Amino acid sequence: MRLPRGILPTPVNRLFVAIAALLCAAPSHAADPLPSWNEGPAKRSITAFVESVTKEGSREFVPPAERIATFDNDGTLWGEQPMYYQLYFAFDQVKALAPKHPEWKNTEPFASLLEGDMKGALARGERALAEIVAATHSGMTTGEFEDSVKAWIATARHPGTKRHFTAMVYQPMLELLAYLRANGFKTFIVSGGGVEFIRAWAESVYGIPPEQVVGTSGKLKYEMRDGRPVLVKLPEVNFIDDKEGKPVGIQRQIGRRPTAAFGNSDGDLQMLQWTAGGPGPRFCLYIHHTDADREWAYDRDSAIGRLDKGLDEAKAKGWTVVDMKQDWKVVYPPEK
Amino acid sequence: MRLPRGILPTPVNRLFVAIAALLCAAPSHAADPLPSWNEGPAKRSITAFVESVTKEGSREFVPPAERIATFDNDGTLWGEQPMYYQLYFAFDQVKALAPKHPEWKNTEPFASLLEGDMKGALARGERALAEIVAATHSGMTTGEFEDSVKAWIATARHPGTKRHFTAMVYQPMLELLAYLRANGFKTFIVSGGGVEFIRAWAESVYGIPPEQVVGTSGKLKYEMRDGRPVLVKLPEVNFIDDKEGKPVGIQRQIGRRPTAAFGNSDGDLQMLQWTAGGPGPRFCLYIHHTDADREWAYDRDSAIGRLDKGLDEAKAKGWTVVDMKQDWKVVYPPEK
Repeated sequence: MRLPRGILPTPVNRLFVAIAALLCAAPSHAADPLPSWNEGPAKRSITAFVESVTKEGSREFVPPAERIATFDNDGTLWGEQPMYYQLYFAFDQVKALAPKHPEWKNTEPFASLLEGDMKGALARGERALAEIVAATHSGMTTGEFEDSVKAWIATARHPGTKRHFTAMVYQPMLELLAYLRANGFKTFIVSGGGVEFIRAWAESVYGIPPEQVVGTSGKLKYEMRDGRPVLVKLPEVNFIDDKEGKPVGIQRQIGRRPTAAFGNSDGDLQMLQWTAGGPGPRFCLYIHHTDADREWAYDRDSAIGRLDKGLDEAKAKGWTVVDMKQDWKVVYPPEK
Repeated sequence: MRLPRGILPTPVNRLFVAIAALLCAAPSHAADPLPSWNEGPAKRSITAFVESVTKEGSREFVPPAERIATFDNDGTLWGEQPMYYQLYFAFDQVKALAPKHPEWKNTEPFASLLEGDMKGALARGERALAEIVAATHSGMTTGEFEDSVKAWIATARHPGTKRHFTAMVYQPMLELLAYLRANGFKTFIVSGGGVEFIRAWAESVYGIPPEQVVGTSGKLKYEMRDGRPVLVKLPEVNFIDDKEGKPVGIQRQIGRRPTAAFGNSDGDLQMLQWTAGGPGPRFCLYIHHTDADREWAYDRDSAIGRLDKGLDEAKAKGWTVVDMKQDWKVVYPPEK
């Protein structure tokens, strides 16, 4: 075998080429990053957007530091019917905390709730609900609250599907979160739900760390107990991260405008407007709950997760609207 | 030359070993990551801590996701004498905004300030200061405010040193930020200063992105102007991120307890207590301003950046106290 000067023996040469190819490999286009999404305009709009903003040198290129994606939680990353899942936690906590509150046996709405009479408990409507939430979300330290959420979510199940609540997250959205992160996006939750409720499980379920969760919050008080510092949750609202509150919460905690935003209700409309209103490429997506068989079908008239003005604005502005029934191959991940 | 089966020719073999060594190289221990720190107990305490929490398999190991480091800004990352640098911005903004406020010519504290009479302007003390801050930090959109800070910080200079304010950051602390990040820490600012003031330049100066800045904030209002969404800064305080506010701000925005915290005044004491109060390895550090020649020397009696209770608690609890005069080879980076 002839060996020209400076050229390695052919098999070794091939080995080098193989190593170089491995080291320099572009991301494979063979594997579908969104396998639970049916082919169609919704899926195409997502991949087209991601490919355009990550293509270096293109006019649409967005530097990685500015690739901020914000997601609503209830109805966008997991279900919200027949009521917000955090309320199941609140109701269960009334039972768990009852031994420490003997007075609840004679006080509404707690007395009815403890007797299993949900209708009686909620007879006074939102005021009763606010009392239940305050009683179960304050009066303890942040650490105690986190522990109680973690204990609850490990065992509690949805009364309808009998699934764990963490198995009622949307498989297509888990894939979307991973796809965006693989393309340099930082993924945030921006939810009307309680920030400390979501943080207790968002990292293990969504891969979203506590510092990337924006949500509704109560006031906190720093104090020393037996020489150790604690933060006590007070029964006063600090911030409601819904509607006009969402852009405010984003500005306050993230400090820059999202490049992409994902929601499912009119409560997300201002977040999508704020996102779309920035210069350069922006992506807004609404999930439309259209699947009464596999999940729930609701929009303009729903008390929970109403999508009315948002649906009109999405159509007018050309935002992506996901038709859950058409666009999603599966809704939930397989239960472990 | 004899070629044993499966063994490459020796020079190629050596090349492979060299490539493998490059690919698998452990971080070099030859380069000092903190070259502006003199050898001594302060520097040793930092490197010993970082080495212990990053050593996989060790009892002290902290998973990367939990490596949260929080830094005060004024007096910890940059100077704060003879007054907080943000106040220079506020005073300069009064002049910049004066054409839009003809009434200021006849209204204190603005009239005195516009005539260059600082003493007269501040005759009413904190109330006058609050009026100046409110007038210069509200009434505009968040985007307009960000632009004004960026324009100011690009040109403004400290009246004493004549340096740009961004050249009055501490070189040893820039190295510390980079060292922590190289070891998997996420670095945050937790400052009593205005969050939007700091965010306008923290990324370019400190490498800390907007979403990792916690600070004092005003209320915001979301509204539509000519069909475009804006966030308007209102003249009401939303949150004061100082003293007991620092652990609250950390919990609210970061959602987990820091592993390491760095401050220089009694305003940082609760942040350091909260950090030290967690389980597992924690690191707390106070910077003691002891260098009247190169910077300023002040502690227990200073109106700005008082370090009194904190100094006692640091000694009692064995926290690291940096003696700026002894421990730092240089204070400021070279001016560009």
